[in-house]
Amino acid sequence: MTQPLCDHPDVLPERLRAIMDFLLLVDRFKTIERQSFLTGATRAETDAEHTWHMCLYAMLLHGEVGMSCDLAHAIKLILVHDLVEIYAGDAPAYDERAQAAKAGLEQAAADKLFARLPADLNAELRGLWQEFEAAGTPEARFANAIDRIQALGQSLLCGGHGWTKNGARREQVEARMAPARAADPLLDRLVGAMFDLAERTGIWPRQGGGHAD
Amino acid sequence: MTQPLCDHPDVLPERLRAIMDFLLLVDRFKTIERQSFLTGATRAETDAEHTWHMCLYAMLLHGEVGMSCDLAHAIKLILVHDLVEIYAGDAPAYDERAQAAKAGLEQAAADKLFARLPADLNAELRGLWQEFEAAGTPEARFANAIDRIQALGQSLLCGGHGWTKNGARREQVEARMAPARAADPLLDRLVGAMFDLAERTGIWPRQGGGHAD
Repeated sequence: MTQPLCDHPDVLPERLRAIMDFLLLVDRFKTIERQSFLTGATRAETDAEHTWHMCLYAMLLHGEVGMSCDLAHAIKLILVHDLVEIYAGDAPAYDERAQAAKAGLEQAAADKLFARLPADLNAELRGLWQEFEAAGTPEARFANAIDRIQALGQSLLCGGHGWTKNGARREQVEARMAPARAADPLLDRLVGAMFDLAERTGIWPRQGGGHAD
Repeated sequence: MTQPLCDHPDVLPERLRAIMDFLLLVDRFKTIERQSFLTGATRAETDAEHTWHMCLYAMLLHGEVGMSCDLAHAIKLILVHDLVEIYAGDAPAYDERAQAAKAGLEQAAADKLFARLPADLNAELRGLWQEFEAAGTPEARFANAIDRIQALGQSLLCGGHGWTKNGARREQVEARMAPARAADPLLDRLVGAMFDLAERTGIWPRQGGGHAD
């Protein structure tokens, strides 16, 4: 980390210094590795890349789905939804122990991270993060569906490497995708077509029987 | 690249298949390396990471600046602004030969890339890209300022490694930041404070004399 910017009021208002220091700090979001892989499984995807990709998914799918939701707000939810992983790390979706510990770790991370911002922005970003997690609004349901569908897309691109590496079972993947399918009929068909491609290309994890191979 | 999704109309509408194939194709945006580096110069930043970071800069700085511009539209411009580099590659900002060749290469890349989308989305994304490049609207001027300020932030984080590696001269950096400073008085102060930090930490490239060292 670099030194903080000078906050002498002649140089920079204290408020703007805090925002800029936050924007420099979150550079480390680019180093948080996910359980997803890039095309050809060359390397793990980072949180920053996943988030950019989700924004583009949202922008291009928003006009297609029947859900009534505000795209600009959904994109804000997406931009913030994983930021706490800067301190909490990525909890693998198919690791039940990691998932059980996730809520407490992420709450503490949110306390630490967002408090670096001025109070109003702290409240705004914390609110966006909580809204995404609660998945109670149309925008949060859309953003959550995109989170799942983008990850499924990465599994297709890397030949199922993430599923194999993490021992994901077919019924776990199906359960993980259920909220995305339930969110919208067109997203349901999209997930169905992606499952169909996973079947045809032989990368779909086997039913039951512990870890995929 | 994976096989395309099935576009039998019973499985998936042709339009949605084209959008999804595009979303899978642009995974390679995560492999386009920029001339910017992460904190500590551990590695080059990718286009996808840069774009995510710009979105967050825009979201947090939008309420601070005096410019009247629509944040949602500015974020769309940001999401699309570098996509053509999937085919054209990144043209280093301080390489005059690369900059001279850039327009033609990116035009051809835009023709190839956006045409993969249905006609209306092709037109929309091409329009966003052109609007960013022309920098004629308030949103495009804001997005262009963010593009420059985010890159300056990376130079602070990596101790000026990008400037040194690319032989950037001080007056080139100053010229590159001039449109960001001209866009808004608060952005002008922010860039000034970032230059001040570069001075204090001794990473600012030397004036004149060819390449920095």
